[in-house]
Amino acid sequence: MKQADLLTKTVKENPKDEVSLNAKLLTRGGFVDKLASGIYTYLPLGLRVLNNIKKIVKEEMDNIGAQEILMPSLLPKENWEKTGRWNVEEMYKIHDENLGLGWTHEEIITPLMKKHILSSHDLPKGIYQIQSKFRNEPRAKSGILRGREFLMKDLYSFHDSEESLDEYYEKVKQAYFRIYERCGLKEKTYLTLAGGGAFTNGFSHEFQTITSAGEDIIYICKKCGNAINKEVFDKKCSCGGKDFVEEKSIEVGNIFKLGTKYSEVFDLKDENGKHLIMGCYGLGISRLMGSIVEVFNDDKGMIWPKNVAPFLIHLVSLDMGDVDVKQKAEEIYSILQNSNLEVLYDNRDDKTAGEKLNDCDLIGIPLRIVVSQKTLKEESVEVKKRGEKKAELVKIKDLIDFLKNDI
Amino acid sequence: MKQADLLTKTVKENPKDEVSLNAKLLTRGGFVDKLASGIYTYLPLGLRVLNNIKKIVKEEMDNIGAQEILMPSLLPKENWEKTGRWNVEEMYKIHDENLGLGWTHEEIITPLMKKHILSSHDLPKGIYQIQSKFRNEPRAKSGILRGREFLMKDLYSFHDSEESLDEYYEKVKQAYFRIYERCGLKEKTYLTLAGGGAFTNGFSHEFQTITSAGEDIIYICKKCGNAINKEVFDKKCSCGGKDFVEEKSIEVGNIFKLGTKYSEVFDLKDENGKHLIMGCYGLGISRLMGSIVEVFNDDKGMIWPKNVAPFLIHLVSLDMGDVDVKQKAEEIYSILQNSNLEVLYDNRDDKTAGEKLNDCDLIGIPLRIVVSQKTLKEESVEVKKRGEKKAELVKIKDLIDFLKNDI
Repeated sequence: MKQADLLTKTVKENPKDEVSLNAKLLTRGGFVDKLASGIYTYLPLGLRVLNNIKKIVKEEMDNIGAQEILMPSLLPKENWEKTGRWNVEEMYKIHDENLGLGWTHEEIITPLMKKHILSSHDLPKGIYQIQSKFRNEPRAKSGILRGREFLMKDLYSFHDSEESLDEYYEKVKQAYFRIYERCGLKEKTYLTLAGGGAFTNGFSHEFQTITSAGEDIIYICKKCGNAINKEVFDKKCSCGGKDFVEEKSIEVGNIFKLGTKYSEVFDLKDENGKHLIMGCYGLGISRLMGSIVEVFNDDKGMIWPKNVAPFLIHLVSLDMGDVDVKQKAEEIYSILQNSNLEVLYDNRDDKTAGEKLNDCDLIGIPLRIVVSQKTLKEESVEVKKRGEKKAELVKIKDLIDFLKNDI
Repeated sequence: MKQADLLTKTVKENPKDEVSLNAKLLTRGGFVDKLASGIYTYLPLGLRVLNNIKKIVKEEMDNIGAQEILMPSLLPKENWEKTGRWNVEEMYKIHDENLGLGWTHEEIITPLMKKHILSSHDLPKGIYQIQSKFRNEPRAKSGILRGREFLMKDLYSFHDSEESLDEYYEKVKQAYFRIYERCGLKEKTYLTLAGGGAFTNGFSHEFQTITSAGEDIIYICKKCGNAINKEVFDKKCSCGGKDFVEEKSIEVGNIFKLGTKYSEVFDLKDENGKHLIMGCYGLGISRLMGSIVEVFNDDKGMIWPKNVAPFLIHLVSLDMGDVDVKQKAEEIYSILQNSNLEVLYDNRDDKTAGEKLNDCDLIGIPLRIVVSQKTLKEESVEVKKRGEKKAELVKIKDLIDFLKNDI
């Protein structure tokens, strides 16, 4: 896409009403726009990142055989009264209606499954959706890390035995690890023991990504590398280890064994009259995007991992007043596009070289390619990775081969 | 996908609480599930159709250079008070909060553009989103044709002259026609003159699809083929024609010239202090899906046009007790999948031939391929198009070539 046509402009100054780094950088780069506390518009660059993450999550869910559906956000009171969750703080209610807004969907999917899971023959089943969720957050100050409206993937699984649930739970764990790996967060993300499980021992698991912006504290066992959330930490690890590293972290996923909590309320049973055993598995897609910004940045801006970046290449034409440079830059843009590479092409003729290069650093596209009078003297372009200092001249005729090896 | 694994089961009986044909067929086929009046869950087959339509709409919007964003659904009162639309019937309000749910987005996009349209240099701009909308509908009885929650594409355009708006308006018209064509509705869909435009002559345009389920009445001019909505019909056409055909129809899209109505309220101006001229262009994606069902069906079920169908091919294995048939069917399933054809494979071993073929007709996938003892005697499969009576035997070795010519 040509940057002169792009809807958004970058801004130099940090927004005055944001305290979190992710909101500051995403706003300055033109990725998001705050409409109200915890409520953001995703602008073209931001929506591209969000959709890249969504695609990764969808692929990994489909890979474990989960089936996608889309439940509504407007949800009837009667379902929530059955579980006693109609009057919880999280739930936005519609004025004068017996409707509330979905912040989770156990109350909807459990009765729905009664129509389609008719016997053990239909089990196990994993059903997920990717959807905007709404949550009454009195203090939404963390940018897109904790919104009143946010994009979430929620997966629910249904089983006729604890063994089947255990097996599925492990499969989802591995799918989650692959998601974080593909999003560039593998090294920073730990599976942790957490509280709040409704089933068996009262534990659940979270995936926590280490960053100084984290609102949570985890303890990583030096012996086995497993981690434990602060609220359930009792100074020893299940491996026997007693030495821990304390880290601040952000929860980027949580998985629960629900047991029969919801199947009992909605009377979801198999053909033998046994209530189905359930699991639920959340992953905040917009929160994951915010976490990536918190982890990958420097004083100049964002540094997107390539699988989630809004574009792979930022092609920058300097010296736009020079007809030859302009023409050559257009040619290179065509060549890159014809090779199916996703390119943001800075063809703006009202910006200085400094402004253009600053924008590259702020927006944080993985690979910068500069075309200028200077590089063209060498029949070359200058290629530089975001986050690295080294730039190198690459002959234009060798560019595609160079990129194929390098990307 | 293997039908034995598919979440949903079909049902023979019409749901008792539905009056519209689209809701009856979509529910029986396992495409949607009604949660409350005008509020539906999209089940795997239904979500596939919805996503196919969404993809077509997105491609046609991108083709005319429109840029995609995603605005929130939770919207602050103050924006709506400025335009006097906070207290309209359509708007759901959150209890005890100054927030309402988005049923349209002029109040959000107009102030947003002030940050990114800085001069005429940035014009024209077309910005769209595809998003769940919420609308307080006291009588939602038309299935997914008129929901309280529904999926919509809304495009907004910004201009510094009426000529620029006119030109863009024409481009959008053509994009809409391509969308209806790709969805199989070309022959049935008319551009009509309608009331309600805020700008110039007070007219707007709608796209109306002819069906007996339609809530609207249009008059098609016998001379020029243009159509006029009942509410603005005065018994003559702009071409001079005075003979009309009256038809029932469903509105599947509407386009408006907004003029400066919203840019004045939010003071959106160019560098010369002139308020920008706006257009807005709606298209209900879930409504389009419902319209397709209303248009394409018979007494046995739905008949999906191939571009929107949940799968292209319904492969049905009869005589599943016969190991040879089962093995051959699995082989054919692999061959079809390896040719990148989207296949629903009915491998269920607890259904009769009659039940399986009835499900094919109800679900309405364009091409049915039957494998049975009888067809295998001829080293063949039986291929039949949904909606046609003629079936033909095709040699298995020729199947892919046959399909390539036929699809």
